[in-house]
This record gives sequence, structure tokens and C-alpha cells, in this order.
Amino acid sequence: MAIITLTTDFGEKDHFAGATKGAIYSELHDVKIVDISHSISPFSIPEAAYIIQNAYHSFPKGTIHIIGIDSEINPENKHIAVKLDDHFFICANNGIMSMISSEIAPEKIVEINIHDKIQTSFPVLDIFVKAACHIARGGTLDVIGKPISKIKPIKNIVPYVNDDKTQIIGSVIYIDNYGNVVTNIKRSFFETIQKGRAFEISARNNKFKTIFKKYSDIVNFNIEENKRNDEGRGLVVFNSGNFLEIAVYKSNSGTVGSASTLMGLGLMDTVSVNFIKDEKFV
Amino acid sequence: MAIITLTTDFGEKDHFAGATKGAIYSELHDVKIVDISHSISPFSIPEAAYIIQNAYHSFPKGTIHIIGIDSEINPENKHIAVKLDDHFFICANNGIMSMISSEIAPEKIVEINIHDKIQTSFPVLDIFVKAACHIARGGTLDVIGKPISKIKPIKNIVPYVNDDKTQIIGSVIYIDNYGNVVTNIKRSFFETIQKGRAFEISARNNKFKTIFKKYSDIVNFNIEENKRNDEGRGLVVFNSGNFLEIAVYKSNSGTVGSASTLMGLGLMDTVSVNFIKDEKFV
Amino acid sequence: MAIITLTTDFGEKDHFAGATKGAIYSELHDVKIVDISHSISPFSIPEAAYIIQNAYHSFPKGTIHIIGIDSEINPENKHIAVKLDDHFFICANNGIMSMISSEIAPEKIVEINIHDKIQTSFPVLDIFVKAACHIARGGTLDVIGKPISKIKPIKNIVPYVNDDKTQIIGSVIYIDNYGNVVTNIKRSFFETIQKGRAFEISARNNKFKTIFKKYSDIVNFNIEENKRNDEGRGLVVFNSGNFLEIAVYKSNSGTVGSASTLMGLGLMDTVSVNFIKDEKFV
Repeated sequence: MAIITLTTDFGEKDHFAGATKGAIYSELHDVKIVDISHSISPFSIPEAAYIIQNAYHSFPKGTIHIIGIDSEINPENKHIAVKLDDHFFICANNGIMSMISSEIAPEKIVEINIHDKIQTSFPVLDIFVKAACHIARGGTLDVIGKPISKIKPIKNIVPYVNDDKTQIIGSVIYIDNYGNVVTNIKRSFFETIQKGRAFEISARNNKFKTIFKKYSDIVNFNIEENKRNDEGRGLVVFNSGNFLEIAVYKSNSGTVGSASTLMGLGLMDTVSVNFIKDEKFV
Repeated sequence: MAIITLTTDFGEKDHFAGATKGAIYSELHDVKIVDISHSISPFSIPEAAYIIQNAYHSFPKGTIHIIGIDSEINPENKHIAVKLDDHFFICANNGIMSMISSEIAPEKIVEINIHDKIQTSFPVLDIFVKAACHIARGGTLDVIGKPISKIKPIKNIVPYVNDDKTQIIGSVIYIDNYGNVVTNIKRSFFETIQKGRAFEISARNNKFKTIFKKYSDIVNFNIEENKRNDEGRGLVVFNSGNFLEIAVYKSNSGTVGSASTLMGLGLMDTVSVNFIKDEKFV
Repeated sequence: MAIITLTTDFGEKDHFAGATKGAIYSELHDVKIVDISHSISPFSIPEAAYIIQNAYHSFPKGTIHIIGIDSEINPENKHIAVKLDDHFFICANNGIMSMISSEIAPEKIVEINIHDKIQTSFPVLDIFVKAACHIARGGTLDVIGKPISKIKPIKNIVPYVNDDKTQIIGSVIYIDNYGNVVTNIKRSFFETIQKGRAFEISARNNKFKTIFKKYSDIVNFNIEENKRNDEGRGLVVFNSGNFLEIAVYKSNSGTVGSASTLMGLGLMDTVSVNFIKDEKFV
């Protein structure tokens, strides 16, 4: 039985996500539909790119991912279907796929061309569902589109490295539900530049010299519980998606505060890493 | 396998929606449950009516829709099951069904009378689930209720037209996730009054003389992308549900603004259309 | 087919809930996954305890409940699997299970010990999913952990009763989607202390001498609808989970107000019951 996932900016209230599921079941009875997120900020391509990159690979091979962000078709915004890492993705060619495709080369990309038969003001429901159900039935991408060779890129998604490789300048690409601040600096990228050197990470006036393995590594469990003051302290980890993340232990933006609220860090803010010459990281 | 949908004001946090699904699976193992929305504003019958009307027809015929808004039974608020357009709806007789039933006549309406056996402070879970599962098993409406002939109407849902048919006075019935402002003026109603005439649409101090086919029709694609200023501009479309809608291209209430925030338009505000004598719409 | 439910503080936006479902389907194709809530306040163990207690028993026996709140493993926070009331629960041993287990004794508790094989920064996805799928396949708890005898308690969850049993001092443990204020005083506890006496319930400067059977019992249906003023009036009920709740008829925190906003009642606030000597409750 095929799995179709949904990642959209439809929100939790409107009928759009429900109607899309109805349309899928009207085409295909035997299918599992899974919500990844409907709460992407409206038209936020970087957020959608981050979320789908982190979610898709937990699903079985062959899963079909519908991504409904900025999907109205126009001369500059075409619809595509992409096969990559044995998963299928259906979305607009607006940069959403470029974060994944910069790491894993697509096996096939087609520009969907089934629009002449369908007049629509709701392309996710009318076009993406048709394409997804075609793939779910075992259909090939060639039937629903013409092959193209390139995906439209997202701008400013790769961190900057200076010429003598002593500094990485990254930026904040996502704030998660805990107010954790996610940067565009991936672990593999970091380690390639680091080459074992000690470092200092700066975000506004906050400095960090360590990257923890997990959030609670900031806690000293030798101190009695009621004498500790770890909740609310800032720290750096590579998160479960392997992105460098500035976090606060047991954060809650609405009560005790979070990395985002306590350090005043928002989307697109700069986070830099300075490597220290001749000093090894221990 | 039957499909049961849920449209409620339970919100995303409380246990109510989860418990309702558990109760359905306890009655029926072979069923698909689909969330349409749990984020209707508490007790908002117009919002629920708008959402269920736009969502239901994307589902296969025979789908059973539970609508849990203001569903506590009392002398003035009875429970009903309705067959309409080959779909089933279970809800309180509080006006929710009147938006759909004003366009499509119900095939059958029953007032549910299985309450004598069930003491409940959670009628969606105890009564609506029982009724839905009865229908899902192929049971008839007559077994769970006594036929009635009328559905309670919603007030003020139809736009006003003046005597010489030069003006429609509508109102805002819904604000969607993008901050788009949806009116109660449907395309078919508009066109019947319009009879090809030119028009001016007014909402507060905003005027519009065109209805676009889609949002991005406001963009002039002949101008270079970085020289355009279409994002943030107001426009009018008939939305995917065929309601007249005032929108802003690529809107986001939280950042660049939306039709609702930029034009100061809220629920129940007036939107009027003035038709221009002897001038054809081109 | 097994049912696995999810109760977490992942929020509606992030990829965590979607990825968890993908991981379940990657292990097990034939399974139903049901969201109970992903909107628990970050790290709020009392909220999670309240929600899972109210939701679980509507599901069929044998259902497996994953609770992902504060689940990072560390020397003071171990993972457990619990069999109780013929349901299975997988969570951290941080107090979440103590509200249920104070009423129903667990049949079996194990401390999960499959971690040596799995390096993880996302324990719900890596550990809880593995444990849940093991149980879904019919596996025993002994294979995934070593039996322990006690669950970590939640503090301050039981209301206080004075020595001569004339007063219960409870506290607010949950505010629901309607702004209703839920206390930790359960019906059975209340009635045991009450012994038929009249009472006065106090919450800030609000007093109540009656507990209604349902919300609309505050309405006098003999008065014409447009002459009533019941909407917005405070009342007390035992809610569908049998907790004493202070509510407002047809409340909406964002518009007409709610028990929480109108009476200024928040989490941890005191609600007391004074029983009146020699006066019977009628």
C-alpha cells in the first residue's frame, strides 16, 4: 500500500488539508496518508525545504511526498515531480527541493504537464493529487511530465567560509517548537573545515566553545537536583538532523524562555564559528 | 472501508479529538478517519458551515462527516443525521448544515433519538460516534432517529441585493490561514446579478474593478523579477470554493501582512459590489 | 492490526511527528497511527499526564501509546514501558504515568534497555518506535527491558483535605481549548469527602454552590432566547474526565472570554471547596 505525505502551509484550521485527503481517497482507496506539517509559515520555501529534508528519510522507500507551498502555477513557477533517494516528491519548482538535491543527486526530474486537461484554482488538490496517485499506482514520471535537468536553487542557503578557512559564517534557517535556533551549518561541513581545531561559536553576544552530544549533557548530575541551575542555560548541539543548533535546556518560549527569545535570535541572523590556530579541540 | 471525517472546535491540544478516534476504532476496526479541522473557533457555527461545505465534496460518496461544534444536547439543540449529495453528516441542529442545504436539498434528515440509552457529557464521543459507526456498518438513518423535514437556518448568511439590482451588499464570513478575506458572495450569485456589467467592489476604502482568475495574475511577468512590487498588493478572486475573496499576493499575516491585516478587514465586515449601468465588463 | 498513538510536545510545525510516523511505517506496514496531541506545552509533564489519562481508555484494549515529553535519556531520566489496564505505554520515567497509575495498578513495568545498540539524539524516533513496534508484533516487555517495581511520582497532584474533612484545597492542572479551568479534584474523591453535605466552591473571588450535570444546565429555557444572558456566565461541572471544572457557557478566550480569562485563573491556582456542617446538598 502506497504512502503519501503532505507538507504544506495550509494551516490547521482551513479545509485545504482535509479536502486534499478526500481527493486522494477519491482516486485511490488503498493508501496511507501522513501529515508531515501544515504549519509551514505561508510561502516560506526555506522552512518547507528544512522540514521535508528532515522528515522524508524516516519513511519507507517509495513514499510519495506532496509539498504544497507557493504552488500556484505561472510562467515562473512550474510544477515538478522528482525521484531522489528512492522517494518521490511533487511540488513547485521554487527551490523547495534544492536543499535535499544539493546533497543527493536526483535520479529523475520531470516538469509536470497534465495541466491542459485541468482548470484549477487549487493546484495541490487538482494537480499534485493526480500526479501522486499516478505514481502510487506504479505509473512512471514520463507519463505526467517532460524530463528536465535542473532544479531551481534556494539563495543563501550555504554558509560562507573565508579564504584561509579560519571562519564559517552561517545563518539561522529555522526556529523549532522549543525555540531552538537551527543554523545552516551541517555537521559534515563543520568537521571538514574544523580539522580538529578548537573553536568559538558566536551568536549576538553569546559565545560557546563546546558542542554537546545531547541537551542534558549540560547538567552536572553530581550536584543535587534542587541545587542545579541548568534549565534556561544556553548550549550548542548538532540536532537530530545534524544541523548546528543553539538551544536552551528545557526551554519553552512561552514560560522560561528559549534560545530564540532569551538570546534574541531570529530567522536570517548570523551565527559564526572562529577556529583557533594551533589549538586542538578536546 | 468506510471513511469518517472530523470537523470540530476541539483545538489541537486537548484529548477530545484523539479520544473520539479511539472510540471509533473501538466500535469499528476497518475504517479510515480523516481530520478536516479541529481549529474552528469555539462555538463558531458560520466557520464550521464554511469549512464543511468546502471540504466534503472532495471525499468519496458515502463518506460520513462528524461535525462537533456546540453539540451539547438541550431543549433547543437537538442532534441530527443528514443524508445529502450522497454524503452523511452528523451534528447538532444549530445551523451548521444550512449553508450546504441551501444549495443542495437533503435526501433525508433524522433527529437522533438514541440518547435514552446513553448518559453523556461528551456527545461527540458517545452519540455521534455511535451514529457514525451505525451508518458505516450500512445501517439506515431511520434506526437512529425520527425523520424531520427542516434544518435550522443560519442567520445573515445570504448577501443583500437592492431592488434595482445595481448593488450587492455582502459580508466577510471567513478569514483563512493566509489572511485572505472570504465573503458570502458566491460566483453563481454574483454572475446572475452582474449580467455582464462592469463593477466596482468596495471593502473599507479599498476599491477593485477586476476579479482575477488566480492570485499570480496580478504579476506582470514581463517586468524583471527584482523590479516588481506585486507582493503585498490587494486583489480579488473567486477562491477554490467559488466565494468572492479579497486577497493579497503572497500574504503572511505575521510578516508582510495580509488582506485582513493590511486592509483592516474582519469577520462580519461589509463588502459591497456596485454594478455600472450601460458599461460592459471586459 | 495494532494501533499506536502519539502524545508529544513536538508542536504542529516541526518535522518530528511526521518523521516518527515514517519510522513506524518503516518498521511495520500494517498499523494504525493516531495522534492524540502534539501541542502539549514543552516539557509539561502534568499536561501530558492529564491528556493521556483522559484519552487512552477510549481506545481498544492492546493499544500502544507513545508519550514523547522530556524523553532525552540521562542518569535521572530512564525510558520505561508499562502495561496497565490492558494498554501499553512507552515514555520517560518522569512522572507522566503516575496520574494513571495512582488509580489503576500497572500489571508490568520495565526499564527499557535496548539503548546500547542505538546511538540517538531523537529517542522517540529511535527508541520508542522500536519498543512500540516490538509490542505491536506481539513481543513481550521482558525482551526490551528489565522489570522495575515503581513509577516516578508527579508532585502536588493530589488535593489536600483538612483534618476534620470540612475543606478540600485543590489546584488548577489544565486549561482546555475553551479556556475551561480543570482542577485536580476528581468526582469520586469529592463525593467521598462530601458525604451529601452542601458546599461552596471558591476560586479567587468567585463562589459556586452547585455543580451542574452539563454546561447548558445554566440556561433557563423558559425565558425567550433573546432575553437570556447565560453566555459568559461561570459555572461548575464535572467534565467528561470526571474532574471538577470551572467553565463559562459558550466561552471563547479570544472573543467573549472564558473561565480562565474572565476569572483570571491559571495553572497551579488554588480552588477550594468548603463543606457546610449540618446542611444537606439538594
